[in-house]
Amino acid sequence: MNFISIQNIDSLDKWVKQALKIKKNPLKNKKLGKNKTLGMLFFNSSLRTRLSTQKAAMNLGMDVIVMNFNSEGWTLEFQDGAVMNQGSSEHIKEAAAVVSQYCDIIAIRAFAGLVDKEKDNAETVISGFLKYASVPVVNMESATGHPMQSLADAITMAEHKTKHRAKVVLSWAPHPRALPQAVPNSFVEMMQKQEDMDFVITHPEGYELNPEITKDSVIEYDQNKAFENADFIYAKNWSNYKEYKFMHCLPVRRNVIVADEVIDSENSVVIEQANNRTYSAQLVLQKILKNGGK
Amino acid sequence: MNFISIQNIDSLDKWVKQALKIKKNPLKNKKLGKNKTLGMLFFNSSLRTRLSTQKAAMNLGMDVIVMNFNSEGWTLEFQDGAVMNQGSSEHIKEAAAVVSQYCDIIAIRAFAGLVDKEKDNAETVISGFLKYASVPVVNMESATGHPMQSLADAITMAEHKTKHRAKVVLSWAPHPRALPQAVPNSFVEMMQKQEDMDFVITHPEGYELNPEITKDSVIEYDQNKAFENADFIYAKNWSNYKEYKFMHCLPVRRNVIVADEVIDSENSVVIEQANNRTYSAQLVLQKILKNGGK
Amino acid sequence: MNFISIQNIDSLDKWVKQALKIKKNPLKNKKLGKNKTLGMLFFNSSLRTRLSTQKAAMNLGMDVIVMNFNSEGWTLEFQDGAVMNQGSSEHIKEAAAVVSQYCDIIAIRAFAGLVDKEKDNAETVISGFLKYASVPVVNMESATGHPMQSLADAITMAEHKTKHRAKVVLSWAPHPRALPQAVPNSFVEMMQKQEDMDFVITHPEGYELNPEITKDSVIEYDQNKAFENADFIYAKNWSNYKEYKFMHCLPVRRNVIVADEVIDSENSVVIEQANNRTYSAQLVLQKILKNGGK
Repeated sequence: MNFISIQNIDSLDKWVKQALKIKKNPLKNKKLGKNKTLGMLFFNSSLRTRLSTQKAAMNLGMDVIVMNFNSEGWTLEFQDGAVMNQGSSEHIKEAAAVVSQYCDIIAIRAFAGLVDKEKDNAETVISGFLKYASVPVVNMESATGHPMQSLADAITMAEHKTKHRAKVVLSWAPHPRALPQAVPNSFVEMMQKQEDMDFVITHPEGYELNPEITKDSVIEYDQNKAFENADFIYAKNWSNYKEYKFMHCLPVRRNVIVADEVIDSENSVVIEQANNRTYSAQLVLQKILKNGGK
Repeated sequence: MNFISIQNIDSLDKWVKQALKIKKNPLKNKKLGKNKTLGMLFFNSSLRTRLSTQKAAMNLGMDVIVMNFNSEGWTLEFQDGAVMNQGSSEHIKEAAAVVSQYCDIIAIRAFAGLVDKEKDNAETVISGFLKYASVPVVNMESATGHPMQSLADAITMAEHKTKHRAKVVLSWAPHPRALPQAVPNSFVEMMQKQEDMDFVITHPEGYELNPEITKDSVIEYDQNKAFENADFIYAKNWSNYKEYKFMHCLPVRRNVIVADEVIDSENSVVIEQANNRTYSAQLVLQKILKNGGK
Repeated sequence: MNFISIQNIDSLDKWVKQALKIKKNPLKNKKLGKNKTLGMLFFNSSLRTRLSTQKAAMNLGMDVIVMNFNSEGWTLEFQDGAVMNQGSSEHIKEAAAVVSQYCDIIAIRAFAGLVDKEKDNAETVISGFLKYASVPVVNMESATGHPMQSLADAITMAEHKTKHRAKVVLSWAPHPRALPQAVPNSFVEMMQKQEDMDFVITHPEGYELNPEITKDSVIEYDQNKAFENADFIYAKNWSNYKEYKFMHCLPVRRNVIVADEVIDSENSVVIEQANNRTYSAQLVLQKILKNGGK
């Protein structure tokens, strides 16, 4: 099995329960990953993902090899049939096949370039590994999705919800810089798999997320209305409301995206979200290992 | 417990004896660190510290995660209340709290910038982690101190002293480039904790170290006089004397800071100092682990 | 023992058989490297070598410390007696001795600079470590040799040869950029140790490899003639022939050095070559460990 998108989760409810079980006893499966190697390939910066995924693998007894592909490896070519007389010196065909010789699972982080939308949507890097690797591939945030983050978010909400049917609002808005949509995309897909939650997306008119992702999720342009009776606010913008559980994937620009008084309040669960990244990653790795590494 | 400065050592004599015991049997506590993770965060280059601290952690059975923060992570903001609409994308508040979710001990290297003395003395990076991390923090050389180096120096002197009351001279002098004072600072503080040694600082008049560090340590501007009857010379400058044990933290510019014939002589103990870095680090980590990781 | 060149192999036939035995049961000697540390120092990029050597060490139960020397450490000085008042801040004398304090085996990658041939042939980096390290040194590709690659090639040919006396051709030709000769050098030296193979080098007249390496190996300028009845072609140039086993060390520029239809054909063994890098490295490390780490 690969873990590329939220769509790889068969039952979100079941996965969240399993992750919470792992959290209670993270070392229970310490022998499961013995003599198995996780290769973590980074094409972009990472703090939480880098550390939590390593931690998860070590909790499972796996060996970990970390590689910053751009600075430590070779420039990759992704186009089939390319005449490689320019800058790239290794084709994804070889790279993915070769890494598969040494690693039992390959985890990859490769952000959107935010220049060519079509290219970003094509997910060149992770699709290339998916196509040419002979071992399972795990998404540590690609151009269009960050499913291990959203799984951690689901775990965090399960721990913090105080009523049976919680209301969750994804608040999305303009950003000083063109913003990757991997996190909101996966969050929306994850929410669509929630059985007992109400979900509203709010953003200014004209700032639509990809309609192929949002599908028939409720979109409310009036932020105040969207926030009525909300339990959790997942913010990708400034929102100065302290009465809701405040969620964010981090890193976050303080006093630009969120006010100090919100993120520092008791209702902020951002550090717990980060903590749950370990169990999110561990569940994914554990499922692959239990599936015989296939 | 944290290990930020030589002042965190309650009894230098006791610590040195414990480190020498570790050196005799470095794998004795191999189980102590089992399933514990050391996170090593580098904001600057490192050879000895990088390798010896990893080695120490592995001797204790710990898992190690190494991260070059500047190139692999996000640019940090250290100012409280900052409106983060500029270059920094993550606040130390989140970064330190987040790393604490995955690591049982955080070790940090963050040099002086040597541009703004006040900022250097404020120890922005390590103070930030100290304030916002929820796990013990270890100093792998900060702007104003390098206590694991000085602890290794104390171990080295204990092994090499040939008389009860040894005389130790710290020789400090101008350098082609503005020089960080972390090593001499911690060395002075360490010497002030030595019960059975005579200590003299020598440097040209006008090149004073921080008087809040040197306090009432003897300062002798006449280098020849300072060196009389010395047993150990800790050199941060050129000194062409072969009759003393020559000490240096390394890296050292040969034939600029020290002549080949001095550092290559039998009296040079620089490699043994480097070797003792492992036991210095291991003692610190071991004390934290034995303290229940607090 | 060190492993610097193919000349360190006493019996190629025996080594290949031992490597194939390791390949059948890679974890058999998992306890051999317990509490031993492999230090991998990279002065250049690496994918296969980085991953396969780590994997090999972990198969032997070793701890691994990886360091990108240029970006993570200090600029090294290699000249004896240098007055180090310029860019370099640490001498190889200290660096090699210091790394030896923390690592039981030091593996080094340091390519040719391709600017000063004499300097490249002097193998400044690896020779420096060899001279000043107090533990075994392993070559992960130096200016003039890549013996772990060629050992993997020998393993691959042993697995794929279909007749007793196979014919092997090294096809070498101009390259858009000045090309390091480490791989062909070691391949030639390895072939000279093959007892049951015919070996021909082919390249355009005037593109001679180092005659001190090729010695009395057969050189045939007519590529077609060289390829007659060949079983394996080791290509460092474009060669559009599909009927031979195609070998390449990778990375390779597709459709510049090799056509898609050749490298993608069933006769291409490049991924198996990469796979065998693990067992090549593991054999070398295992021999050093069995030799008491000397």
